[in-house]
Amino acid sequence: MRLFSFFFTVGLSTSMALADPLPSWSESQSRDRIIDFVESVTDPDAATYVTPADRIAVFDNDGTLWGEQPVYFQLIYAVEAFQEMAEADPSLVASDALKAAAAGDYAALAQSGKAGLVEVLAATHSGLTVEAFQSSVANWLAQAKHPDTGMAYDQMTYQPMVELLRYLRDEDFQTYIVSGGGIHFMRVFAQEAYGIPPEKVIGTYTETSYSVIDGVPTLTKDPAIGFVDDKDGKPINIDRIIGKRPVFVGGNSDGDFAMLDWATAGEGPRFGLIVHHTDAEREVAYDCDSHIGRLCDGLEQGPEKGWLIVDMAKDWSRIYSGTK
Amino acid sequence: MRLFSFFFTVGLSTSMALADPLPSWSESQSRDRIIDFVESVTDPDAATYVTPADRIAVFDNDGTLWGEQPVYFQLIYAVEAFQEMAEADPSLVASDALKAAAAGDYAALAQSGKAGLVEVLAATHSGLTVEAFQSSVANWLAQAKHPDTGMAYDQMTYQPMVELLRYLRDEDFQTYIVSGGGIHFMRVFAQEAYGIPPEKVIGTYTETSYSVIDGVPTLTKDPAIGFVDDKDGKPINIDRIIGKRPVFVGGNSDGDFAMLDWATAGEGPRFGLIVHHTDAEREVAYDCDSHIGRLCDGLEQGPEKGWLIVDMAKDWSRIYSGTK
Repeated sequence: MRLFSFFFTVGLSTSMALADPLPSWSESQSRDRIIDFVESVTDPDAATYVTPADRIAVFDNDGTLWGEQPVYFQLIYAVEAFQEMAEADPSLVASDALKAAAAGDYAALAQSGKAGLVEVLAATHSGLTVEAFQSSVANWLAQAKHPDTGMAYDQMTYQPMVELLRYLRDEDFQTYIVSGGGIHFMRVFAQEAYGIPPEKVIGTYTETSYSVIDGVPTLTKDPAIGFVDDKDGKPINIDRIIGKRPVFVGGNSDGDFAMLDWATAGEGPRFGLIVHHTDAEREVAYDCDSHIGRLCDGLEQGPEKGWLIVDMAKDWSRIYSGTK
Repeated sequence: MRLFSFFFTVGLSTSMALADPLPSWSESQSRDRIIDFVESVTDPDAATYVTPADRIAVFDNDGTLWGEQPVYFQLIYAVEAFQEMAEADPSLVASDALKAAAAGDYAALAQSGKAGLVEVLAATHSGLTVEAFQSSVANWLAQAKHPDTGMAYDQMTYQPMVELLRYLRDEDFQTYIVSGGGIHFMRVFAQEAYGIPPEKVIGTYTETSYSVIDGVPTLTKDPAIGFVDDKDGKPINIDRIIGKRPVFVGGNSDGDFAMLDWATAGEGPRFGLIVHHTDAEREVAYDCDSHIGRLCDGLEQGPEKGWLIVDMAKDWSRIYSGTK
């Protein structure tokens, strides 16, 4: 019995010593506010206690859980996938936007405007089965490298946020992604990168059609946009799919403002978090003037609404989950 | 140590004796097939083992988990809610369909066709916040009685199916509703009636709009249909929201055919189940000729596809969860 008791004590104190849930967060007010909140809603004796069934946490993806510069990674996938397609069949290069994509010329692609982007996305995100699309994304992720960091894209997840997701789940939160990114795209890596399974990935989607081809029931991705999970679309989609108002909500751009505003306006304790990209040295510094992940309203109104503005440069001791 | 061992043995055999997971199912081949399947996918040593993450089970609601005769219960809600509205404001009765609804005349309402039904649904399912709508449904459920059985509607759930849901969850399945019924309607009772929380209720929805009214972020139900979760819409919506192909799927009408066909066409073990309404004495007997819950293709093709056709009269020793 003594030996058992000895191991038990050692085991316990080791696990307690390891128990810092947010090791990549600097010792800061930000970190303390998060931990204080989580403790306050998980303490059954506290007036602020939230039952596990209602512990819903939602996070934007691009710029919140992983990088989004110089352009959304999903657009880089589309351009690189189209380059391969165009190499195999040059007749596909049938417009200025597609020409820009085939050349990997993002500046020229940007000049073709929203219509041009939609054209490149449609060319690469439709006309194939869901399974074929996801194989293509998986193959791309396995070899593609980010132009600035040289890292694999799914290594460019933010380690402090991965820890936050895990911490919340350890405290019986359900963690969801609610992103402008595509559902079929994100589901390829969300489980491994974030521990978030397909059924907890909410996002933008194209229409899908169902047909029985040679006796095989098949889901095919169509070019038409079905739903854009951005701005007002975020609270709408959360209500539609989750049916509960989240208790913890994180984003980084004004595309997340409505989701943050709606969630934190709910009764009882709520936590709103905005990742502010302040670290020009380790990542990219941007906010109100950025063409991607523009953050103005959130910076201006967030503090008075009680939202935590995370200062990446100061609050995070480490940025990426992966190494080069 | 002996005493401990004694209690352990007694505890174990007691729990095994109590462990009939489907007490309202007759001792039948149907019951055996369900249990054999569940055991085969949860046995880690079996070649048919399915990891808990992939144990997705989906069920239609109307006619599968609760009754649907003489008309969908949600339509009865709409008619009775409209009767109350019309009493308070007679000017709302502005068409033949609405006149029929105000009079509670289902035959006349049916004569106004699909457009008439949509009109009554729109009048009662839009122009109010999600919260106000759900309060209205909850109030209705608390006092409404079914015209034939005299039971509360949420007591008219099928006890054998409630047991099946619980059995699947006990075996680490996630159980979802995938129904032509409305998401905001079903979420009012799904947790209590089935143990299925809002985030696992998939269904038809109207559009919702987001606005900030007097500083309060608000979701309002609009009249336009957003998505009809029936027929091809079911596999499409399952892919969109769950992102996995279900392993266990149950329905009762040809509106569930595509969902059953797609799910059971997946690789590995799959179980398709159709509730066949054969019990004229304890419920209503109907299939291919019914105006509601029409079942032809499923009856004809189901057996050769390996789906279990549940014979309510023979396979269920009890029908409803509630009593009068």
